[in-house]
Amino acid sequence: MAEVNRQWRLVRRVEGMPSVEDWRLVEAPVPTVEPGTFLARAIYLDVAPYMRARIAAVRNYARGVEPGEVMIGGAVARIVASRAPGWKEGELVVTDFGFGWQDYALLRPEAVRRVDPTLAPPETWLDVMGLNGVTAWFALFETGALRPGDRVLISAAAGSVGQLAGQLARLAGAVPYAVASTAAKIAWCREIGFEGGIAHRDCEDLAGAIRAMLPNGVDLYVDNTAGPIHDAVLQNLAPRARIVVVGTVSLADRLGRPDIGPRFFREILVARARIEGFLVLDFEKRWGEAWARLAELLRAGRIVTRYDVADGLERTPEAFLRVLRGDNLGKQLVRVSAG
Amino acid sequence: MAEVNRQWRLVRRVEGMPSVEDWRLVEAPVPTVEPGTFLARAIYLDVAPYMRARIAAVRNYARGVEPGEVMIGGAVARIVASRAPGWKEGELVVTDFGFGWQDYALLRPEAVRRVDPTLAPPETWLDVMGLNGVTAWFALFETGALRPGDRVLISAAAGSVGQLAGQLARLAGAVPYAVASTAAKIAWCREIGFEGGIAHRDCEDLAGAIRAMLPNGVDLYVDNTAGPIHDAVLQNLAPRARIVVVGTVSLADRLGRPDIGPRFFREILVARARIEGFLVLDFEKRWGEAWARLAELLRAGRIVTRYDVADGLERTPEAFLRVLRGDNLGKQLVRVSAG
Repeated sequence: MAEVNRQWRLVRRVEGMPSVEDWRLVEAPVPTVEPGTFLARAIYLDVAPYMRARIAAVRNYARGVEPGEVMIGGAVARIVASRAPGWKEGELVVTDFGFGWQDYALLRPEAVRRVDPTLAPPETWLDVMGLNGVTAWFALFETGALRPGDRVLISAAAGSVGQLAGQLARLAGAVPYAVASTAAKIAWCREIGFEGGIAHRDCEDLAGAIRAMLPNGVDLYVDNTAGPIHDAVLQNLAPRARIVVVGTVSLADRLGRPDIGPRFFREILVARARIEGFLVLDFEKRWGEAWARLAELLRAGRIVTRYDVADGLERTPEAFLRVLRGDNLGKQLVRVSAG
Repeated sequence: MAEVNRQWRLVRRVEGMPSVEDWRLVEAPVPTVEPGTFLARAIYLDVAPYMRARIAAVRNYARGVEPGEVMIGGAVARIVASRAPGWKEGELVVTDFGFGWQDYALLRPEAVRRVDPTLAPPETWLDVMGLNGVTAWFALFETGALRPGDRVLISAAAGSVGQLAGQLARLAGAVPYAVASTAAKIAWCREIGFEGGIAHRDCEDLAGAIRAMLPNGVDLYVDNTAGPIHDAVLQNLAPRARIVVVGTVSLADRLGRPDIGPRFFREILVARARIEGFLVLDFEKRWGEAWARLAELLRAGRIVTRYDVADGLERTPEAFLRVLRGDNLGKQLVRVSAG
């Protein structure tokens, strides 16, 4: 065991696009194991768009991180010392939120789930078998009310939720289409079953490109980004279109400032469209339902995911900024130890 | 019977706020009664916000009126000559859309409903017993999923749909709040059971006024207007808020041009709010359900409606413009004949 616990602590709440200077790496003592707890060492740390809102000064659905605190985040970790009955040294666990950007965390059993590496590989527990899996599942099948034949457009389609949502939509008899930043990402999307896609960084008329690809409109839009992609979709709604607002990553550089742009009330009315905010925590009691199915699909090789892994705890803020800028291809993780 | 049929014909499709010059009054011959039809003479003509979109150059959910055609609109009318079996001279009928702004219309039975004046007074068949009744009913109880205790905010609350929605919300155990243009309208709203209200023409900070009135936020917003009132509500969403987009009358002067303003994706996400476009025609097969209940409520005196009646066919465009500007108090009608 190392002598120190390296931790990324938040320096300040952030208004515009965050930068690596908004956190600082400190060395703290490795915590002492108290009765009822265990100490775990991170293998993979999660970095994900939801974290942007946790460091913003504005209202959110969950408590934010205060300056001076360790940055929030999930991890797959190995127990290195335990005083919690039933939890043994060497076992793998995953925390969805409560590990933090650090080498070691002192955890209580109720804060973690057991990782069964025979069921699915360790990294998937921060992805398909973690928040991304249940986000894609409930966004499509509950809030999105997906039906066979739906033309499903997915933004940030090569990202963690997007790549999974596209594959699940296809498995459920719908036809997924991708919007992603680059042609390389669109190529990956096609490889895993998307019917088509648009690389929006090269696209001058996104609304027109969507119209050309989907002349009868979008039935279901899984909105991971907000911003200009949302605007383009609102001009291409099929009757009874559903828009599930899963994330707003394109607003990362302006959280707390007004987002000014075109509104589409007539389009919403004419299409009788439904726009609905989605928060995966609302489905927490039912996550197990989805994971049971997702584990089967993973084992059967019917869903694949791609990872973009940064090496070393010291690269964690940088990896997070890659996600906010859309520079990652696949689910972004940080490898902290060999495990 | 008069020798001529006065008709308001559309001069042009309209982009900004319409003016009376966008129609012209012509005299046409009274139509000859063909077999299977009857001739009816208007008593009341309807003027309503939905007509704005029918004369716009932009896409809508229904066919528009072409220049040279008689302007679309419903009417309560009396049969003056009939060659349709089972439909007698002297009987009252109502058409929801297909009468037109004119003295006489030649109608087929399938285009009308019978008016039973012992069930509800003639004018109510263009209101509670007409499109407004079913709009308020299905917007609240279907799309809006109203529940007892909901704080329901209603824009254009003293208008035809608004006044009814407020009373129905109260009868269903919810607490209705009004937004209307003037203090006189708010006073009327309070009289019929709204808990409180805001006169937005005198209000510099509408979002703040809503926050002061409803510190825990809006559970259900019946959006008859779009525009700045919508924006103010989006800053005051209760968790799981529902916004039913019923109409966009505040956009009457800019249909076909982009509506630029603040967007509220984070607020939608954080509140897990649902914004849904509403079109009463989607519920057409079920209108009878609502009218049966509404007739009972009317007869029991449990709902009241106020009418704003312009006198004479020649005032029809002017009466319509009053509605678009929000100058009417209560459901706007035009009295064309004594009946």
